[in-house]
Amino acid sequence: MNENVEMDQQFEFLRRLLHEDKMAEFRDIFLDWHIYEQGQFYFTLDEKERHRLYTYLSPKEIADMFDVIEEDHEDMEDYLAEMSPRYVADMLNEMYTDNAVDLLNQLDKREVAKYLSLMKSKDAIKIKELLGYEDKTAGSIMATEYVSIVDNQTVRSALNLLKKKAQEAEIIYYVYVVSETNRLLGVISLRDLIVAEDDMLISDVKEERVISVNVADDQEDVAKTIRDYDFLAVPVVDSEDRLLGIITVDDIIDVIDDEAASDYSGLAGVDVEAIAETPLKASMKRLPWLITLLFLGMSTATLISHYEVLINEASILAVFISLITGTAGNAGTQSLAVAVRRLAISDDKDPGFFKLILNEVLTGAITGSVTGIVIFAVVGFWKHNYILGFVIGVAMFCAITVANLAGSFIPMLMEKLGFDPAVASGPFITTLSDLTSVLIYFNIASLFMGFFIGT
Amino acid sequence: MNENVEMDQQFEFLRRLLHEDKMAEFRDIFLDWHIYEQGQFYFTLDEKERHRLYTYLSPKEIADMFDVIEEDHEDMEDYLAEMSPRYVADMLNEMYTDNAVDLLNQLDKREVAKYLSLMKSKDAIKIKELLGYEDKTAGSIMATEYVSIVDNQTVRSALNLLKKKAQEAEIIYYVYVVSETNRLLGVISLRDLIVAEDDMLISDVKEERVISVNVADDQEDVAKTIRDYDFLAVPVVDSEDRLLGIITVDDIIDVIDDEAASDYSGLAGVDVEAIAETPLKASMKRLPWLITLLFLGMSTATLISHYEVLINEASILAVFISLITGTAGNAGTQSLAVAVRRLAISDDKDPGFFKLILNEVLTGAITGSVTGIVIFAVVGFWKHNYILGFVIGVAMFCAITVANLAGSFIPMLMEKLGFDPAVASGPFITTLSDLTSVLIYFNIASLFMGFFIGT
Repeated sequence: MNENVEMDQQFEFLRRLLHEDKMAEFRDIFLDWHIYEQGQFYFTLDEKERHRLYTYLSPKEIADMFDVIEEDHEDMEDYLAEMSPRYVADMLNEMYTDNAVDLLNQLDKREVAKYLSLMKSKDAIKIKELLGYEDKTAGSIMATEYVSIVDNQTVRSALNLLKKKAQEAEIIYYVYVVSETNRLLGVISLRDLIVAEDDMLISDVKEERVISVNVADDQEDVAKTIRDYDFLAVPVVDSEDRLLGIITVDDIIDVIDDEAASDYSGLAGVDVEAIAETPLKASMKRLPWLITLLFLGMSTATLISHYEVLINEASILAVFISLITGTAGNAGTQSLAVAVRRLAISDDKDPGFFKLILNEVLTGAITGSVTGIVIFAVVGFWKHNYILGFVIGVAMFCAITVANLAGSFIPMLMEKLGFDPAVASGPFITTLSDLTSVLIYFNIASLFMGFFIGT
Repeated sequence: MNENVEMDQQFEFLRRLLHEDKMAEFRDIFLDWHIYEQGQFYFTLDEKERHRLYTYLSPKEIADMFDVIEEDHEDMEDYLAEMSPRYVADMLNEMYTDNAVDLLNQLDKREVAKYLSLMKSKDAIKIKELLGYEDKTAGSIMATEYVSIVDNQTVRSALNLLKKKAQEAEIIYYVYVVSETNRLLGVISLRDLIVAEDDMLISDVKEERVISVNVADDQEDVAKTIRDYDFLAVPVVDSEDRLLGIITVDDIIDVIDDEAASDYSGLAGVDVEAIAETPLKASMKRLPWLITLLFLGMSTATLISHYEVLINEASILAVFISLITGTAGNAGTQSLAVAVRRLAISDDKDPGFFKLILNEVLTGAITGSVTGIVIFAVVGFWKHNYILGFVIGVAMFCAITVANLAGSFIPMLMEKLGFDPAVASGPFITTLSDLTSVLIYFNIASLFMGFFIGT
């Protein structure tokens, strides 16, 4: 709290320096801040203030800031639009390639082409290559600023190389050992380099069992590798084991965050990332989903209307519709969440598919039995009608078991069909489960119709 | 896939070496693996094989492995129980303190005391201190193996110190500059040390604006700091700015994973982390929640039963109960997810509270109006009864608005009361929303009762 207040005062002071056009004093303070804080300040400025800022700072200084903040904001393209194209091109030149690519991916193709045409052709080619990788693959999030060395050199020359590369490399804590044709042969951590004698040969200190990821691997698999091995970075290779780039742990944190938010959004049937929206904008995004579910819900209503005669004869049946659909929906949501999570963390080795579904159905049968017995006793006692209790108990048992089946089967099916299983959202499962629950309930009730007439 | 098969073959080969008691060959291969792979192999062994493994490997070698795998498995205490207490104590001595503490936190107090009594008293005191920090605070996840230096030294002596400490420090990529009384004065990254001239003074190259976290800070705030600043580690200080430890990015990834899983679990009303359970065990965990919600659902049923006379007169009303409760439940779940996520990422600066609730209620009013108009038209057309359509449309509007209010208000209230807002789960909100929706629906329907009698 105090730090925030202090920071606010500093922001205020710096803004005054901007207004009074005191460039030297401004630069003194601003460049002393951590780049993340520079970014936070940047976001508080209005357009006029930002225009002055661009005259104060070099494209390199803005690039350093954009390297850290590019993930934090949705409207980065608006900021680029207000700079001169030449300034943007120079800035993109200075940014780490992975971050420059993230930024360019937010723009439309014409804009991208314009900036690329203004960049140094060597950098432009590199970035064009990276832009070509499919979204959410290792290639799309890797950077090309790594440090590599051939292995007939000494530790001393490796350290000297690091000294030279330290400014531009995204991470200097691993040096990758490559062949003449850039094939990945090994890795040395800076830790090992520091401990080793200066005259030792790289070939003697390198670790040959180097864990790498393929450029086409899914970013979630890359995240798993970095997390499991506690790496700071992992090298990215092509199918012939040639080193193409590295992925660093800070990018992986963004991947983990994004995947978690998207799983969470899926379960709730809403994009939770878009939080600073106006009610109107939020409504526009939520309505298609709500209306779709409304029509799915209409089929449940239609189904119930087929049993209107039964309800007319025994209105007591209507009392328990929402109890059965609600409880089955809750159980189905539990199954869904377990299945989605299981799919997210499972390895290829996992036999999983049928076993998970079987487990969930068995779990449904057990929880369904217990819930069914409880509701049988409660309703029997409350309404003094144990046949009604029995009907509701049996319906509850069946509805929960089917909801668990649907909750585990549907995400599995999505996965098999190549969709993200997380899009099988909670609201979809509960609305679907409403339909099956009502069907089960009234069919069972029909069998006992004779008992209900007139109750 | 291929790598997995290859790894399986290597596992098989190594297991044979264990059975044939070929220790030297076993060690040659095993110690050449990455420690994460050693851990994966370890998990495939049976108890007899593990007993032999403990005679092959030193406590230090087992400790290295446990440093990486301690987060991966729930039953680590079973593994400790089968080692001799002396071996465990030696192993704990060799582990990084944060990981040793994580491990000890899984044991009961008597076990912990036993191992601590066998450890070197200096290490035991350090670990006892760390065990004293509250769960989920910075103190509970920090390690004490950092590298620090006083600032009247040269870059050369700092590099020499790093060389010496490289083996034991958890991370050597930052050197912390401290006063005689261990107050944190600055930080130097290894990158800066490598670039700097050997004869420069530490006081001249150190970064004085060092970002630190307080030992009592919530681990989620620490995660936010590391993520925002793209740090590899962050120093932990007490209220007098004395350096107590560091938290590294790999621990933060575990924190982010855990928090995401727990938010996800909350929304679904089920612990998604416990995935390898038997159906019986899973049922035991899910039932308390299902039964609680069942009784909450019973109040909805009770409420409906108050309107049985109305249903008796106009059974058509029963047809639309589940449509209204279902749609309002879906809308409420959306609001809930947005509110929980908003609370998770908001800063203290955020005015948020009332603004978010107001936004959600407005969003509810807009989505409720559109949904209400759609259902009015559909029901009116379908049942040729526009008064019925009007009743259902208005009820839908009110039910969605109230569901959005509840979905955003309840997690906010939880947060204010000091609970984790994520425990306000989706199933709870939908079940609660069933109750309010039914209340709204039948009250509105009662007003129009004259129109329905006999329909």
